[in-house]
Amino acid sequence: MSIVVVGSVAFDDITSPSGSVTGILGGAATYFALAASYFTQVRVVAVVGEDFSPEHENVLKKRGVDTRGIERAAGQTFRWGGSYAENLNEAKTTFTDLNVFEKFQPRIPKEYDDSEVLFLANIQPTLQANVRRKMSGVRLTGCDTMNYWIQGARKELAETLKLVNVLLINDTETKMLAEEKNLPRAAQKVLTMGPQALVIKHGEYGATIFFRDGAFGTGRHPFRAPTLPIDEVKDPTGAGDSFAGGFMGYVASQNTLNREVLKRALFYGGVMGSFAVESFGTERLQALTQEEIETRFQIFRELTHLE
Amino acid sequence: MSIVVVGSVAFDDITSPSGSVTGILGGAATYFALAASYFTQVRVVAVVGEDFSPEHENVLKKRGVDTRGIERAAGQTFRWGGSYAENLNEAKTTFTDLNVFEKFQPRIPKEYDDSEVLFLANIQPTLQANVRRKMSGVRLTGCDTMNYWIQGARKELAETLKLVNVLLINDTETKMLAEEKNLPRAAQKVLTMGPQALVIKHGEYGATIFFRDGAFGTGRHPFRAPTLPIDEVKDPTGAGDSFAGGFMGYVASQNTLNREVLKRALFYGGVMGSFAVESFGTERLQALTQEEIETRFQIFRELTHLE
Repeated sequence: MSIVVVGSVAFDDITSPSGSVTGILGGAATYFALAASYFTQVRVVAVVGEDFSPEHENVLKKRGVDTRGIERAAGQTFRWGGSYAENLNEAKTTFTDLNVFEKFQPRIPKEYDDSEVLFLANIQPTLQANVRRKMSGVRLTGCDTMNYWIQGARKELAETLKLVNVLLINDTETKMLAEEKNLPRAAQKVLTMGPQALVIKHGEYGATIFFRDGAFGTGRHPFRAPTLPIDEVKDPTGAGDSFAGGFMGYVASQNTLNREVLKRALFYGGVMGSFAVESFGTERLQALTQEEIETRFQIFRELTHLE
Repeated sequence: MSIVVVGSVAFDDITSPSGSVTGILGGAATYFALAASYFTQVRVVAVVGEDFSPEHENVLKKRGVDTRGIERAAGQTFRWGGSYAENLNEAKTTFTDLNVFEKFQPRIPKEYDDSEVLFLANIQPTLQANVRRKMSGVRLTGCDTMNYWIQGARKELAETLKLVNVLLINDTETKMLAEEKNLPRAAQKVLTMGPQALVIKHGEYGATIFFRDGAFGTGRHPFRAPTLPIDEVKDPTGAGDSFAGGFMGYVASQNTLNREVLKRALFYGGVMGSFAVESFGTERLQALTQEEIETRFQIFRELTHLE
């Protein structure tokens, strides 16, 4: 099944203990699209400025990503700067220039109309809801959000959550959204807000998926997929978006949708996130092999497999 | 196999978002002994003061713990005060009165001489080494330590590490001990310092065991056991010691010692740690049933079990 991702394409300045880079291709939609491209056909909806060159677009095209939904606007592309301290856990934003992204109004090309899976990357919740409503053929919608919207646009976000099937956020965002400190209880509360499944990303410790009872199967047992840094962590930027790309991409590649598929998808999310952090920007995600992906899947599977 | 634990017995004042308690029984050896008592015969070596009453001792005796190694000294028992903020991740120490613990010189009763498993809870490294050397019948030694010794007694700790089989510490301690930020690389470095296996405790995310190649089997693949708060987290004090008690206790209960046993032990560690945090102090650990333990083991197993 084809998957449409709506989100940011950006140029990033990044400093980590491993070095510094300037103006490299980034943005949630970019990381997501590259990660998902190893599993299924990906279509991007985004906005870029006049500084977005054919070379930039080719990074996506080389991976077979459909870029017809990338709109060119007058002005500059979204730029973000961040730096990571020794522990690499949190980026300190040094600047945010929204540029053309500030007035982003997602337009879905007609050619995308037959897409059955949709991923709403982290953008303003009402824009997310509008996109979902426009795409009537979509059977499964994934969604990301962030503290900024949870705190500043709670009402709009609540409307969006009613329209999505799987929400992918981190521990802090889950507790903030649920206004509840205990994670499993927070998860159950979020599942009453709309999504049938909630994926909580734990960063370097993997992710847990919680299911609403009756959704994709029965029971309320959650599932955890681990992750482990395999190589050096050079740049954590985009790890969460690459996780989402691996997760949603694997789901979209399957003919059936049940808990076993979602559990395996959680592992593939961890796999793609772990590749993303091994290089600055999207470099590692641009040229993976299926064998590398399967090998890491097996390593992560063995990591928690009890005989 | 009987297991000897050497460590602190204390009275704690604890404040968490769930409430406050004063002067309750705590200490690493206490949490460890209670947790391990569900798996095997446990023997304690510790020092207490004149304020340690028969009622306190009965908490251990009721669980069949051998308390003949608890020495009475003139003065007061070790007292510790700590408080937890909303996130519960780190205790802020409000006071530490070492009292009789300051001059603790572990004395092993003759009756403990046939013990085959030893756990050196977090005490001064040279004391740990002395205990290990005295107990010639021990076949497996587990060990804990903390930042204070890693920074302040590195040389002494290095000597101790040569004598232990399994080291159980957390992420931060591992990176500090190895002077290496990448966790798997830090783990490999610690495994060159003496231990054949390293258990890294991730708090609410479970634990990972790394093996030296050739120790307890072949290969270098690590193993992760998850954990998940099941009920409300009332008091995180003693979670790590209870983890160690579940881990070492299960190991001591088995006739063979191989990787599969250590993997299952890692799950039992998580199980006992998760019970410990459900009440203030040791309350929950005092009266568990085998059925409760097995049920939680199955929940944690299903949490990461891919078909």
